[in-house]
Amino acid sequence: MTRDLTITDVRLTPILVADPPLLNTQGVHQPYTPRLIVEIVTADGVTGVGETYGDTKYLELARPFAERLRGRRADDLNGLFTLADEVAVDASRVENAVDVGGLRGVQTADKLRLSVVSAFEVACLDALGKALGLPVHALLGGKVRDAVEYSAYLFYKWADHPEGVEREPDDWGAALDPAGVVAQAAQFKERYGFTSFKLKGGVFPPEQEIAAVRALAEAFPGHPLRLDPNGAWSVPTSLAVAEELADVLEYLEDPALGTAAMAEVAAGTEVPLATNMCVTTFAEIEEAFTRGAVQVVLSDHHYWGGLRNTQQLAAVCRTFGVAVSMHSNTHLGISLAAMTHVAATVPDLHHACDSHYPWQSEDVLTERLTFTGGKVTVPDAPGLGVELDRDRLAFLHRRWLDDDGALKDRDDAAAMRVADPGWVTPSVPRW
Amino acid sequence: MTRDLTITDVRLTPILVADPPLLNTQGVHQPYTPRLIVEIVTADGVTGVGETYGDTKYLELARPFAERLRGRRADDLNGLFTLADEVAVDASRVENAVDVGGLRGVQTADKLRLSVVSAFEVACLDALGKALGLPVHALLGGKVRDAVEYSAYLFYKWADHPEGVEREPDDWGAALDPAGVVAQAAQFKERYGFTSFKLKGGVFPPEQEIAAVRALAEAFPGHPLRLDPNGAWSVPTSLAVAEELADVLEYLEDPALGTAAMAEVAAGTEVPLATNMCVTTFAEIEEAFTRGAVQVVLSDHHYWGGLRNTQQLAAVCRTFGVAVSMHSNTHLGISLAAMTHVAATVPDLHHACDSHYPWQSEDVLTERLTFTGGKVTVPDAPGLGVELDRDRLAFLHRRWLDDDGALKDRDDAAAMRVADPGWVTPSVPRW
Repeated sequence: MTRDLTITDVRLTPILVADPPLLNTQGVHQPYTPRLIVEIVTADGVTGVGETYGDTKYLELARPFAERLRGRRADDLNGLFTLADEVAVDASRVENAVDVGGLRGVQTADKLRLSVVSAFEVACLDALGKALGLPVHALLGGKVRDAVEYSAYLFYKWADHPEGVEREPDDWGAALDPAGVVAQAAQFKERYGFTSFKLKGGVFPPEQEIAAVRALAEAFPGHPLRLDPNGAWSVPTSLAVAEELADVLEYLEDPALGTAAMAEVAAGTEVPLATNMCVTTFAEIEEAFTRGAVQVVLSDHHYWGGLRNTQQLAAVCRTFGVAVSMHSNTHLGISLAAMTHVAATVPDLHHACDSHYPWQSEDVLTERLTFTGGKVTVPDAPGLGVELDRDRLAFLHRRWLDDDGALKDRDDAAAMRVADPGWVTPSVPRW
Repeated sequence: MTRDLTITDVRLTPILVADPPLLNTQGVHQPYTPRLIVEIVTADGVTGVGETYGDTKYLELARPFAERLRGRRADDLNGLFTLADEVAVDASRVENAVDVGGLRGVQTADKLRLSVVSAFEVACLDALGKALGLPVHALLGGKVRDAVEYSAYLFYKWADHPEGVEREPDDWGAALDPAGVVAQAAQFKERYGFTSFKLKGGVFPPEQEIAAVRALAEAFPGHPLRLDPNGAWSVPTSLAVAEELADVLEYLEDPALGTAAMAEVAAGTEVPLATNMCVTTFAEIEEAFTRGAVQVVLSDHHYWGGLRNTQQLAAVCRTFGVAVSMHSNTHLGISLAAMTHVAATVPDLHHACDSHYPWQSEDVLTERLTFTGGKVTVPDAPGLGVELDRDRLAFLHRRWLDDDGALKDRDDAAAMRVADPGWVTPSVPRW
């Protein structure tokens, strides 16, 4: 068995993909959002694909990383982290800023590096799997389930983006009150079979969001419900909401910002707290776990540094009796496949994972992944089990090329200012 | 690329291997020690090998496990743990007893299961690597170093076993005082190039062992030194030894028994504490780490459940700023190869690993692994990179078959009673 796993080519394709006008505490999603598609090609001509955030600062890091990757082996996954250490990051641009678009906690140079590494790691795993004839989950030790459950990711949303863009409005309509949220949930359930629901909150005053969750509880009795205001609340507000919704919440996600505030909230409620904001790196774990600040860590394999790091995170969580599930930001099918493969290998996954995927009307795959009964079947084909549609990729890349720069860096506040020129990103806690 | 990774056959071969009269706080090694050699064979005829403890209680568990393994796939590594849960353990035989022979912490049914799983996991990785044409380290994400450093494992020892057995005495001679220990260390350095030294203590009163470490420090200035009394000391004794040897110890290993005592010692000394006794399972980590009881965890891939679990342990340690290295008990070349593969993939391995291998004059391989400059070169051949010598295996198995039962379960106290009929396992703390 001879096989040359040397990486001979690396292709980076930034794209802009359509995004609906989804609201969060910092603003609203822009009409298009940047993603980066990574392809690696081995000497034997096997191509592996990966996907990550596509903002400029990620691209700037991905380019020198890609240069260094040529000549290395696709199975040298541990080496990716060594390589990442060699790529300089302009720390002044990222350190200690809360990532506005991503709402994914404090940024550091390391975290930015890991977000880039993740796309290359997934691409290497895809190539490796194809070269060896094994699905990615087998490269991660094998699936322990045949399908991975996802939750419906409910958003307050407008019917249209505020400014005319050359695209049709999505078919979800507006959702700006309890009835709208329940209708959206019903659509999610009907189309995809989701049975657990997460509402992105922090948009309206807590009373209104409490009312929306209550309405969901009435419409879908017994279904797991979650509310995520992205750290918009003070500790007292968080505690008040927790008390108000204690009987229906599966967990409350990032009610308050930062480990100290989360620990205070956790100490005052029996409702489990989940996070993808105060525990987003291995360095943040010790304080959060020893203070009991979080009961569920929502891993985003992009910023944790890939699928194997996600498995390691799961091991750390398991060791400390903390649950693990998965966070999602705007992403396409490559990342959904990656999430599904790794989630399939995590033994104690007791909460449905989050995914924005149903909100994405566009993809770069020849065939979209599908949710049945709220689940994605774990692919058993070699690699990730997905195929890149090069025409679609070229089309979405052309859109990125044609953009004058307004959309190349996700900025939910800027999008909001189109509708409300006086909008400033709310200071935290907002309520 | 079609390949059938189905496991069609599993062979378990218990053996007895020669062991020198090495002293520890519980007694002395018997002339022969039991090990279990595991082979799995895939439908394509690829054989993978693994090795673990060979005492009766391990065999009793390995047999039903092997039965269940047939028909499963060699790449279903996560499934091994599910499978292990299905195999019943007679808990009354193992729970809460300190493992006498192994000196490896409190036993539980889970830990016993993991020790058995580890041999099958390594055998599966070996088979998988051979089937795919990849070394085991590549299946673990790739080596980050080309050679793994080991330390010389110094023992107080007699020249011969107390009772005549049909074998020649080893060529190491006795080591029962500082001069003997230094002479042994010099032999280790000359033969294998080791530059760090660990002394198995708990055998003589602390003053004598302090004198031995002092003699080593004088004979080998600047070389990392360790002392491991296997929990034989009280907290005050541990603190006194730590103070006495603070200037020369790389770390002190398991001076006192249990997390509470270790935490007390750690609070009173700057000398790092290492353990393979109070942190031997994932369940023991939280208390030990939050109390600051240990600064270095010595993983034994056998009882942590294999190579991938060892990587997970390393990730947990890294997350909490605790160092990781490797423990060793009497083992053969299969396990040394396994240790070397996994150690090669752990990024932050800053202490030389332990290995008993130089004490083992017998092996089941066609070619022994070698230490050069204190290091073992990481094999790049497919699988573990070792080959089973079936004649040797049959010979050592015959010895096991011929044994009347006296040696089928390691018992260091029983061996000691041959020389000293009044010997009882010392109560802890001994000093």
